[in-house]
Amino acid sequence: MKPNGLRQLWAENKAALNGWLAVPSSFSAEVMAHQGFDTLTVDLQHGVADYQTAVTMFQAIGTTATTPLCRVPWNEPGIVQRLLDAGVMGVICPMVNTRAQAEAFVSVMRYPPRGTRSFGPIRALYAHGPTYPAEANDQVVAFAMIETREALDNLDDILGVPGLDAVYVGPSDLAASLGYPPRFDPEEPAVVDAIRHIIARVKAHGLKAGIHNGTAAYAKKMIAAGFDLVTVGSDARFMALEAANVAAAMKDRPAPGNSSGTY
Amino acid sequence: MKPNGLRQLWAENKAALNGWLAVPSSFSAEVMAHQGFDTLTVDLQHGVADYQTAVTMFQAIGTTATTPLCRVPWNEPGIVQRLLDAGVMGVICPMVNTRAQAEAFVSVMRYPPRGTRSFGPIRALYAHGPTYPAEANDQVVAFAMIETREALDNLDDILGVPGLDAVYVGPSDLAASLGYPPRFDPEEPAVVDAIRHIIARVKAHGLKAGIHNGTAAYAKKMIAAGFDLVTVGSDARFMALEAANVAAAMKDRPAPGNSSGTY
Amino acid sequence: MKPNGLRQLWAENKAALNGWLAVPSSFSAEVMAHQGFDTLTVDLQHGVADYQTAVTMFQAIGTTATTPLCRVPWNEPGIVQRLLDAGVMGVICPMVNTRAQAEAFVSVMRYPPRGTRSFGPIRALYAHGPTYPAEANDQVVAFAMIETREALDNLDDILGVPGLDAVYVGPSDLAASLGYPPRFDPEEPAVVDAIRHIIARVKAHGLKAGIHNGTAAYAKKMIAAGFDLVTVGSDARFMALEAANVAAAMKDRPAPGNSSGTY
Amino acid sequence: MKPNGLRQLWAENKAALNGWLAVPSSFSAEVMAHQGFDTLTVDLQHGVADYQTAVTMFQAIGTTATTPLCRVPWNEPGIVQRLLDAGVMGVICPMVNTRAQAEAFVSVMRYPPRGTRSFGPIRALYAHGPTYPAEANDQVVAFAMIETREALDNLDDILGVPGLDAVYVGPSDLAASLGYPPRFDPEEPAVVDAIRHIIARVKAHGLKAGIHNGTAAYAKKMIAAGFDLVTVGSDARFMALEAANVAAAMKDRPAPGNSSGTY
Amino acid sequence: MKPNGLRQLWAENKAALNGWLAVPSSFSAEVMAHQGFDTLTVDLQHGVADYQTAVTMFQAIGTTATTPLCRVPWNEPGIVQRLLDAGVMGVICPMVNTRAQAEAFVSVMRYPPRGTRSFGPIRALYAHGPTYPAEANDQVVAFAMIETREALDNLDDILGVPGLDAVYVGPSDLAASLGYPPRFDPEEPAVVDAIRHIIARVKAHGLKAGIHNGTAAYAKKMIAAGFDLVTVGSDARFMALEAANVAAAMKDRPAPGNSSGTY
Amino acid sequence: MKPNGLRQLWAENKAALNGWLAVPSSFSAEVMAHQGFDTLTVDLQHGVADYQTAVTMFQAIGTTATTPLCRVPWNEPGIVQRLLDAGVMGVICPMVNTRAQAEAFVSVMRYPPRGTRSFGPIRALYAHGPTYPAEANDQVVAFAMIETREALDNLDDILGVPGLDAVYVGPSDLAASLGYPPRFDPEEPAVVDAIRHIIARVKAHGLKAGIHNGTAAYAKKMIAAGFDLVTVGSDARFMALEAANVAAAMKDRPAPGNSSGTY
Repeated sequence: MKPNGLRQLWAENKAALNGWLAVPSSFSAEVMAHQGFDTLTVDLQHGVADYQTAVTMFQAIGTTATTPLCRVPWNEPGIVQRLLDAGVMGVICPMVNTRAQAEAFVSVMRYPPRGTRSFGPIRALYAHGPTYPAEANDQVVAFAMIETREALDNLDDILGVPGLDAVYVGPSDLAASLGYPPRFDPEEPAVVDAIRHIIARVKAHGLKAGIHNGTAAYAKKMIAAGFDLVTVGSDARFMALEAANVAAAMKDRPAPGNSSGTY
Repeated sequence: MKPNGLRQLWAENKAALNGWLAVPSSFSAEVMAHQGFDTLTVDLQHGVADYQTAVTMFQAIGTTATTPLCRVPWNEPGIVQRLLDAGVMGVICPMVNTRAQAEAFVSVMRYPPRGTRSFGPIRALYAHGPTYPAEANDQVVAFAMIETREALDNLDDILGVPGLDAVYVGPSDLAASLGYPPRFDPEEPAVVDAIRHIIARVKAHGLKAGIHNGTAAYAKKMIAAGFDLVTVGSDARFMALEAANVAAAMKDRPAPGNSSGTY
Repeated sequence: MKPNGLRQLWAENKAALNGWLAVPSSFSAEVMAHQGFDTLTVDLQHGVADYQTAVTMFQAIGTTATTPLCRVPWNEPGIVQRLLDAGVMGVICPMVNTRAQAEAFVSVMRYPPRGTRSFGPIRALYAHGPTYPAEANDQVVAFAMIETREALDNLDDILGVPGLDAVYVGPSDLAASLGYPPRFDPEEPAVVDAIRHIIARVKAHGLKAGIHNGTAAYAKKMIAAGFDLVTVGSDARFMALEAANVAAAMKDRPAPGNSSGTY
Repeated sequence: MKPNGLRQLWAENKAALNGWLAVPSSFSAEVMAHQGFDTLTVDLQHGVADYQTAVTMFQAIGTTATTPLCRVPWNEPGIVQRLLDAGVMGVICPMVNTRAQAEAFVSVMRYPPRGTRSFGPIRALYAHGPTYPAEANDQVVAFAMIETREALDNLDDILGVPGLDAVYVGPSDLAASLGYPPRFDPEEPAVVDAIRHIIARVKAHGLKAGIHNGTAAYAKKMIAAGFDLVTVGSDARFMALEAANVAAAMKDRPAPGNSSGTY
Repeated sequence: MKPNGLRQLWAENKAALNGWLAVPSSFSAEVMAHQGFDTLTVDLQHGVADYQTAVTMFQAIGTTATTPLCRVPWNEPGIVQRLLDAGVMGVICPMVNTRAQAEAFVSVMRYPPRGTRSFGPIRALYAHGPTYPAEANDQVVAFAMIETREALDNLDDILGVPGLDAVYVGPSDLAASLGYPPRFDPEEPAVVDAIRHIIARVKAHGLKAGIHNGTAAYAKKMIAAGFDLVTVGSDARFMALEAANVAAAMKDRPAPGNSSGTY
Repeated sequence: MKPNGLRQLWAENKAALNGWLAVPSSFSAEVMAHQGFDTLTVDLQHGVADYQTAVTMFQAIGTTATTPLCRVPWNEPGIVQRLLDAGVMGVICPMVNTRAQAEAFVSVMRYPPRGTRSFGPIRALYAHGPTYPAEANDQVVAFAMIETREALDNLDDILGVPGLDAVYVGPSDLAASLGYPPRFDPEEPAVVDAIRHIIARVKAHGLKAGIHNGTAAYAKKMIAAGFDLVTVGSDARFMALEAANVAAAMKDRPAPGNSSGTY
């Protein structure tokens, strides 16, 4: 199978730029897949796409060299495995707060003997070729989201679970859990310290780390701080942002002219 | 029924800012409906949404005060009437090149005795209330696209068709028909002259005019030149533009740091 | 193939009770198919279902003995033939106002040599069995809607088109075309006279006639007047009517009790 | 954000009339939203809509002042949170039989520090405005279904869980669990006693109560008995009921007349 | 209600031929339902259909005498019950490895007092008639998948759970769990021995057994070995196999002729 | 843009093997795209996919090197252009019986000045890259179906229309039009003669020809006779054929064994 593009970047010690898909449409997914992201994550937790639509989005992404990832709605074995079968190269699992939760998650990410993933790579076999069954265990990436105080308390326990490849930091939930307003690109010292602590422990365990960001500027800081994958914005945010820019620019538009002028 | 917001703006001699929907998703439509556009047009000609999806997009737009419009795939009576029944307040019809084509289009836009629209406002009745049947004829707006040399040749014939409310200029097709590369915001004198000619004749006939633009700056020029409705960009373009901006800003990202630094 | 249930009823000189489907859902179609209608019509003109959804509705109807019909959005050969291929046993074509329109419609309803229908009964072959290609010409029913003054003027011309099996009267459009408010169950003498004229001429030509009604009472009058198929209401109207009844019945509901009482 | 209409009614000591949506269609949802219900519940447990379709139904409801609620398929954190993100103002959770189950349910209904709901109100932010994140905890309503003997045994434990706002009684399941045939509007003394016991304990705990009913008459009795929200029927039942009424009324229809008569 | 066709075959001591549906389409489901299978299983674990699409597939199957079954994505009560409500006559539950898992699964398969299934057979009532509520407990079939070493270790515990009707063997997962490559039609003695052991214990407990096969030849061996239901291939495999055959047969195609020849 | 694979094959004087997609699913399309076809045609005339679904099928095909084609429901400018915008590299238009029909079809296949195609290659731009607008005219292939006696009568007129690239023979309709039963792989001399005549005239005009076949054997004969593209079967036929083979092979299956045997 074609190697996981994300693992290739990491092998070259590069940080991946991840795009985020909240709009449930294979067309918007295809548009996003042409904009320069290394990976694209279909968000089935807070995004609007469901599994059935997500499959068409993975197909759209598959028309390009972009690597498909997903975030599952919850740490539930059925959906994790369905998305792997649909061909994603990495799964981001929300709210991994304990070692047991991490173990349950990573278990279904890998075929026996390394895990308990059930066999049936229905689309992955087409998307990634006949060697997928033999190589998938080494290619897919299991991201556990670290986003609560409880997860911080159990951080080393979680990071020590064999088969966990990476963490993904959700700054909004982490901030909320620590008592601060949920938002991207946090500057509150307590939240920043928590993120710094996470990345330090992740590196100590030899794992990789990703984080959600609101702006490119903050994302670069996160890479400098050690993150290996940074998400910036999302399809819906980009659309809204630029639309709002246009609407703002048009605020002072004149009344329709009398057509006698020139332009 | 609530008056057509577009007609209200025009009654106040204001130019409408129109947004354009190419992504087939009710969620992206709802996002766009919150960004400050006066009207939103679901494009069934060059956009990806089909009728069935478009209905859900009109519903999403209907959660806001934005006025729903559509562009039909072609001057075909079935789809024009289905979209009116779905509650749009205006229909943009592509490639109206002759008086006969204009007559065919406007005929199905109005109930008898002003036209031949078939009765059955299945969603419009809910979206616009029980007076819709009696008032729709006065509220909906029929836009004929003027976008070919043939249409220019027949311009006064077309503009003189009773029941036609407005034209909509497609600069790309107009430019192509005149022998220039298709693009928004044209500067070629021949194309600019043609647009200037259209707006002059439209005003002479007491009609309204809309035009598709790539940028707010050009749109403002068009308003100054007499246009009553300006479209800027589209959902997909906004998304792609801002995504590309982010990807460009991240081009020079560093390698992942060693996590020992501060931020 | 199983004979068309509608033709069987007619062969027994019985009037068919037709249900009307405006809601784009295979589930509501299946619910309706269990309520006692002889035929069910998926309305692609004023209803909300598009072809793709309609196919699933025909499948749902196909779980029962109810005969599937459809109304097409317009007299357009592509959609008429697609719906036949999807297995409908009859097609209602709106706005047949001239002999030429009637000829165009009936032509694509039958395979050569009786017509020009293209061969490819993709679902019909499964729904109706391997003899469908040989028997479809004799089984499907072509309904032309007579609903304008122009159609009245051309009535005998239309009714004389070989291959036309029946007419379907749309009282709303007919009334509107004659200068009256569009509504079901018309009582205006001019509209009633027009309907009476239609049914008389239809019978004179040996054809069948159907009509849309708002109430069972009016539908029975229409049968007595000669109609062979009567539609009453629709899925959406039934739902709305009974929901409104419930809401009305609950208008005078008390404030929540103190739970100390008995019931 | 606009206050939750359900809480407003309750603040005025009024009982809410709730409609029930089993048909997976945004159009039927919109029809129902115009019939006079205070709230509409999309049923993802026994109804046919899935999450992806439900989002379009919430949008359709959002074109009116009706308050959107949902019933989740099961007490599973992923789907509860996805539906909150989609903008529902209340969640009905089936089969809450123990205090632990109630705690798990209410935990994901509220953001920290009152709960563990993950942050990402993707549609709620548009549907309810920018203050949603700050105000949602006070606005959404958590309904635990009390519908088994086990739940009755643990009733005070369940009702005492902080964050639980209301219960919803499922008479069918409750009856079945108590050894009686599942049906709406139960009259068996044991079931009636159980319902009376539930409402008494709910009131004692200062909570609210809702119940599913088959008829308006029974619903009024339930309000008198203390219930604060009553559901009557459903979209599919309304449609089926009125359709069956029409079919019954047409049973004795005559044979088609000879068209020579008058009407 | 019409008796479950699968139980009828078993009552006659016949082995059922089961077809497998991975393609998310009601049309392909209908095509498959006409090819001679006794039962058809919509696979929501490794297949591509989600619940919403699966409902339309059950409707398509319901146009024939084929018995609808499903495999759920996971042993999760919500989806098991939703699919029963959608009218399936049997549920195959993956990865039942312990007695507790088997108990949880079978509990939601039956209404009280035999289980805890929640009442609301939304489509089943239409598909199977008004006696469904009273008879469903005796008609539906609960299949637990035995496909891991852990399940083998707990086999008698699992088989002894009251309410379990049958097991379904997944040879791929079973092989993988035992240390062999996942594949259909296993010949490795350890895997064969495990299958033989399963069937022997199943028969000792008086239950039924099904198994997934790649070829008809192997399936017949499995019937001879005691299996009561055999799956062969799937819709997607059949399509791919025959398509590949055609492509192979066309490999040596000539260059286009000069059209002067005869044929 | 990447050159049209079909034109490349033709430039090398090779015959293309075309697959046919009747199942409305992006997953089955992706499966078919991996089986060795040079081109895949989504059939919107007799197949079940509609435009909205077809877009996802083109995306699925776009994950491979297979060239996407489509057949439109009818010679209607709206749908021809929408499918080009969706990225197809060729369009097969049914029932082209006259020169005027051929002219109308080819006109909308090409941008000015060679035609009147409207500009807006919404997905084509992503699928085929930024040079698509400049190169599409030279890359797309316009196929006119020759399938009636009328078309035979007008054959040279049709073939002489500038911009027509190829014909596609529909043997079923052609046979029916000539008075024979509609079927693939015709052997009736009159039909064979007609096909031979078509291919001779096509070659005389320097155009290309495609034909629909039931078997590989017949397809090879057609290539030998001069055809440049041959379709064999379809996704649904392949599925049905192999499923029926399996069912036939299982006809003589034994009763379930007593499990005491070996295998």
